Amino acid sequence: MAAIAEVVSTYHRVPLPVVLSDSRHGTIEAFELCLVRVVDADGAEGTGYTVTVGRNGRAIMATLAEIAEIVAGADADLIEALWTRIWWALHYGGRGGPTVFAMSAFDMALWDLKARRVNLPLWRLLGGYEPAVPCYAGGVDLDFTLDALLAQTDRNLERGFRAIKMKVGRPRLSEDVARVAAMREHLGPDFPLMADANMAWTADVAIRAARALEPSRLVWLEEPTIPDDYAGHARVIAEGGVPVASGENLRTIRDFRALITAGGVSYPEPDVTNCGGITPFMKIAHLAEAFNLPVTSHGAHDVTVHLLAALPNRSFLEVHGFGLERYIDEPLQVRDGVATAPERPGHGIAFDRDALAKLG
Amino acid sequence: MAAIAEVVSTYHRVPLPVVLSDSRHGTIEAFELCLVRVVDADGAEGTGYTVTVGRNGRAIMATLAEIAEIVAGADADLIEALWTRIWWALHYGGRGGPTVFAMSAFDMALWDLKARRVNLPLWRLLGGYEPAVPCYAGGVDLDFTLDALLAQTDRNLERGFRAIKMKVGRPRLSEDVARVAAMREHLGPDFPLMADANMAWTADVAIRAARALEPSRLVWLEEPTIPDDYAGHARVIAEGGVPVASGENLRTIRDFRALITAGGVSYPEPDVTNCGGITPFMKIAHLAEAFNLPVTSHGAHDVTVHLLAALPNRSFLEVHGFGLERYIDEPLQVRDGVATAPERPGHGIAFDRDALAKLG
Ligand SMILES: [Mg+2]
Ligand SMILES: [Mg+2]
Repeated sequence: MAAIAEVVSTYHRVPLPVVLSDSRHGTIEAFELCLVRVVDADGAEGTGYTVTVGRNGRAIMATLAEIAEIVAGADADLIEALWTRIWWALHYGGRGGPTVFAMSAFDMALWDLKARRVNLPLWRLLGGYEPAVPCYAGGVDLDFTLDALLAQTDRNLERGFRAIKMKVGRPRLSEDVARVAAMREHLGPDFPLMADANMAWTADVAIRAARALEPSRLVWLEEPTIPDDYAGHARVIAEGGVPVASGENLRTIRDFRALITAGGVSYPEPDVTNCGGITPFMKIAHLAEAFNLPVTSHGAHDVTVHLLAALPNRSFLEVHGFGLERYIDEPLQVRDGVATAPERPGHGIAFDRDALAKLG
Repeated sequence: MAAIAEVVSTYHRVPLPVVLSDSRHGTIEAFELCLVRVVDADGAEGTGYTVTVGRNGRAIMATLAEIAEIVAGADADLIEALWTRIWWALHYGGRGGPTVFAMSAFDMALWDLKARRVNLPLWRLLGGYEPAVPCYAGGVDLDFTLDALLAQTDRNLERGFRAIKMKVGRPRLSEDVARVAAMREHLGPDFPLMADANMAWTADVAIRAARALEPSRLVWLEEPTIPDDYAGHARVIAEGGVPVASGENLRTIRDFRALITAGGVSYPEPDVTNCGGITPFMKIAHLAEAFNLPVTSHGAHDVTVHLLAALPNRSFLEVHGFGLERYIDEPLQVRDGVATAPERPGHGIAFDRDALAKLG
């Protein structure tokens, strides 16, 4: 056993390279990065993080301070035991929201620590399936002009992407239909193209949209409506005739179970930074496997590549354009549509802490 | 219109008069009180609050600071518009946990402000049904000896209570059965007695417990299992043969809709300090009415008495022993089993801010 000696969290407000927008979160100029470092009694370290789209990061930091108290001196190897202890210690004022973001970052740090101690990359420690993971470029481009959208697409193709997701949910459905059709035309008939509505619609409007978008043969339509409308999701799949991805706004394995058993999701997309961490992410992926569903992801691609590389039912890895790679020593590389989980121990991400500290 | 001029939040750690314990939260020595004061451009004020069982209050304070930014200068009368604006502004890092606690406190302050501006008590502003509300004493007494439990019960009878709730979920079911039977014996056959398991059990164990407790004719069994096991709740009602109260750990109107439509609750028990505030509390109560269900409550009895006094389907008001009345000028009085909503404007609670400030 190696006891937890230190849990140090830092907050950084990271400006985006380009101002982004989608149908629900409005304009996003910066994201918040909450970094956690866990040091054990032998001096071994693990790092975890979570992000927001610009708000509530301070609440996450407050919960990380609670977690540091709750786990002081505990055996860092007992991740399930610690996860359960934290869950119940924070249940009444937790069970969702910033609490789960904080737990996600801490859980990630514990797994990184464990993997580094045994000198294995995470993807091998977690089971090991295949390090080369198909990925897609997740565009946050709802308000881009069509020209800007196509130019971004060309840059993504040059960068090695062979699958792309765009935003939908413009004020008029005809705009969405025209933009998706233009992308399909630009990319050719077999190129994997997804669209993300970020909860813009009711179930009925989403069904109408799915049918109108049918000629563009989307791989999936993402978050057609609010996350807790499981029955609505199921109707979009059944009546809209489109596969649905959803999950970036679900916070527990039980939320995923409810959505999956309702028939409301074709591609569950947990986010390791907000579903409770690596521990629940893997459970959600295994749950999906039991229901014969592929699993995709949301955010944090540098860590998530390891998780999908450990899973037989992995689908595409989402690669985000938040610009965190500017603060990472060896960021993920994409080649011919594939991202490869590194062989470095742990998740293998080393943050440039000096550069981050300068951000404030 | 009166614009929001100031949102001032303060944090207080309030020691409990007696150390409390239940099956899930362990020993509770103090609760956290987060107070919000909203002042409009005319100098009118409203006050709201939320509490925790000892952890994560700082995360709530962090979210309250976000809310203050989000609503600066807005029309304080447009509570639904502000609620929706805050919900979406904080959705990605929110949608549960401390975020909803913070929203609850802020929403309460807006309703208090509105009621004070029009010089009406909340229960009249919100609809007005009947100010005298039946109530019960909610004991947090799992680890009390039987003698201490009965002594507490006698004190509650002297204080005017005519309905009582006790904790269950001891290590052995036989202990729960004996304690509940002793209380039933002590109180007589027709006295309203409830039991609260605080999520201690699986659904199957809860069904066994419900059947073993059947001779004691509980009004309800509360939180027999984890809040998101809606199907498990339904089985406890159907197979256990006992009415179930649940909801203090649900955070949205949609959580309640899911539990209610699953047939998992006989007495929905929203908590105005953690369900998103007065706005969602009233919607949850009306939803319950549409499903022919009475609504009870959790916590914050000084404010909640107004809400139940505005509702035709109100059941018992929970009266907690957290000791907040030591810091309130005119705390709620209980007479012959009934608490009466005051005729003072707003919720009518004036906190002793000097005494609270001394707590730190
Ligand atoms: Mg998305
Ligand atoms: Mg309870």
